[in-house]
Amino acid sequence: MAFKLYGSTSPSSTYTRLVAMIAKERNIPYEFIPVDLQKGDHKQPAYLEHHPFGQVPYITVRHLSPFPGSHRCSALCADSYLLVEQQDDGFELFESRAICRYLATLGSGPELIPTDPKARAKFEQAASMEYAQFDPIGFALFWERVIKQYNGQTTNEERVKELMAQFETKLDGYETILRKQKYLAGDVRAFHSKHVPIETVGLMNYLCRRSRSQIYSMYRSETLSLSSSN
Amino acid sequence: MAFKLYGSTSPSSTYTRLVAMIAKERNIPYEFIPVDLQKGDHKQPAYLEHHPFGQVPYITVRHLSPFPGSHRCSALCADSYLLVEQQDDGFELFESRAICRYLATLGSGPELIPTDPKARAKFEQAASMEYAQFDPIGFALFWERVIKQYNGQTTNEERVKELMAQFETKLDGYETILRKQKYLAGDVRAFHSKHVPIETVGLMNYLCRRSRSQIYSMYRSETLSLSSSN
Repeated sequence: MAFKLYGSTSPSSTYTRLVAMIAKERNIPYEFIPVDLQKGDHKQPAYLEHHPFGQVPYITVRHLSPFPGSHRCSALCADSYLLVEQQDDGFELFESRAICRYLATLGSGPELIPTDPKARAKFEQAASMEYAQFDPIGFALFWERVIKQYNGQTTNEERVKELMAQFETKLDGYETILRKQKYLAGDVRAFHSKHVPIETVGLMNYLCRRSRSQIYSMYRSETLSLSSSN
Repeated sequence: MAFKLYGSTSPSSTYTRLVAMIAKERNIPYEFIPVDLQKGDHKQPAYLEHHPFGQVPYITVRHLSPFPGSHRCSALCADSYLLVEQQDDGFELFESRAICRYLATLGSGPELIPTDPKARAKFEQAASMEYAQFDPIGFALFWERVIKQYNGQTTNEERVKELMAQFETKLDGYETILRKQKYLAGDVRAFHSKHVPIETVGLMNYLCRRSRSQIYSMYRSETLSLSSSN
């Protein structure tokens, strides 16, 4: 299996990078097709047929099929991808977390989603926390502080204050969880490679180093293990 | 398997009702333990040990074990639950969607989450849409229009206007999807019983009957099929 990844080249497109990261974790080859958000490519009718909410990323799945006659040179070619061609499969997917869950079941590499029912349930609890507790507030803050300034709009400081107060209660919740277990999804680390964006680690260090020892020590140990695996 | 459901008795606690609904779909017995949100039970330290974000619902899982000697009367007892006692399992879970995903794999009844990888991916796409496209805006509107008024606070009409404009683009996306397939998760209905709250159907009818024929017709047919199964 391979796929085409339609996404943004901007480093701030965390959703595109999330999909690329899981593809690398699972050793799945993909071709990157840049979508120009500045030009508004993602709001054009042709694009909306693939992603009805006009966002990035989405993927189209491709088969890897042997070239006709490729078996004749198989002993000579070191890279097996030289022996295959890609064909469209007709299967498309949007919503970055859904794409990641799909890719996590394909390719090869360490297990990313547990199969044991109770470990799976704890993974789902952590995944839901990311969606319900962290992302709406994190993204709203990013919108007020970064996107609005980038677009020449004025940050609503009252809203930022309200969001920061909400965010503090969420970080308190993470502290409680990490007092009882090593990672947010349990005691087994669900993520293995060095593809975590360094900004994520930096942000968590910044937010948590003073007052939240559990979160800080988890991210600190992850940073060290990531840099030692480079 | 059985469980204790710690949740709100308020009809507006959709998350508690969601868990109860899936338990009924999968024929899993549970005991309801009311949490008094008015009194702030969910913000007490003892509660936060079970749900670190101070929300409802959460569950504690219980085993169904035969009573000692129950085999002696098994031929006489019509209801098999008379033959068992419940014992704590020590396993707890919060985040309503994570609880629902866990319950969906247990009990008995129609399959709620597809197992075929591509059907599963489309289910995940729809589940992610609910989380990323629908819920943050829907909940923010509910907060401004219902909760704030209930708490004696003033609705921010500017914010409501902004949210409604965002919500319209999401409903447009749903229309595009439902032009291509019967349900949001594909052509197979993922939900089977009559436990869908009637307010949900009513709200979607209200929002969509004039301008969004695909959403309206799906909800209309669901309403009819639900009332005919009563």
